[in-house]
This record gives sequence, structure tokens and C-alpha cells, in this order.
Amino acid sequence: MWEACVQVMLKPGVLDPQGETVGKALRTLGYDEVQTVRVGKVLKIKVEGADQAAVAARVEEMCRKLLANPVIEQYSFQLVKESEG
Amino acid sequence: MWEACVQVMLKPGVLDPQGETVGKALRTLGYDEVQTVRVGKVLKIKVEGADQAAVAARVEEMCRKLLANPVIEQYSFQLVKESEG
Repeated sequence: MWEACVQVMLKPGVLDPQGETVGKALRTLGYDEVQTVRVGKVLKIKVEGADQAAVAARVEEMCRKLLANPVIEQYSFQLVKESEG
Repeated sequence: MWEACVQVMLKPGVLDPQGETVGKALRTLGYDEVQTVRVGKVLKIKVEGADQAAVAARVEEMCRKLLANPVIEQYSFQLVKESEG
């Protein structure tokens, strides 16, 4: 069993109103050192599979096909082996 | 300048309908090896500051006060030093 930790973020040039709102809220609360905030999604996916390379290829495909919108989002992921049982 | 990468996830016992929906969608697309999916938020926050310990304490406070709901969410973060200019 593997756990894939997938991060999906808006691409650098894409406007992020949610991140801007969080940044403003933080500065309003007195955190003046905050420069910019970008908000994205994280997905923790438990996947069966023996071979790391094969699992990575499948997760990569999931990202392309469903988890990220390639027009405005970029993704990255890490695989961690989980002990069974 | 530091970049704090904050992950906010629902606590383990808390129902995650969004994650379940993504899991079902993946299995429908033929990814039968997917066991469970949990969805959370990731925030990339650029923060001014010289001292790593002081910046970490401030980011910890931001998480507690604004970024996570301590009743149902847990958070973790990493700090990465960014080169200036």
C-alpha cells in the first residue's frame, strides 16, 4: 500500500482571489510580515500496488485526467510506502 | 524571506465527502487500486523575517487563529528560506 500526497496549485500567473483574501485577513489580524498567499489543494490517496514506478505512473495519470486542470493548475506528488495491516 | 507551506487536513475521524467523491470518480475512471482519498488545503505563504524560530512561531499562531478550524482540522507546515531579490 502506498500513500500519494498530491499538491495541486494554480499556475504562477493565474489570479488567486482566495489566497489574496487570506493574505488580507492575516494582515488585518496584525501579521504585517505576510507578503503573498497562494491557496491550493492537497489530496492524500491510498493506493494498492507493489512496484513504485508503476504506482507513480498511475498517480501521474490520475492527476492529468481528473485531479488537476492543466490549463490553470500544476501538480506535484510524493509517494510514501505504508506498512500493511 | 521565508516560504511557509501549510497543510490543513480534516482530522482522521472527520467525514470527508469531497474526498469520497474524488475516490469514487477515480474508481469509475478505472483506477480500482484507489482505497481512500482525503482532501485538504495547502497554503504557500511568503513571510518576511530573519530568525527561523520566530517566523515558525508566528506561522503556528496564524494556523491556530485563522487558517485551520481546530475542532475538525489539523495542520502542519514547513519553512523554506528564500533567497532575496
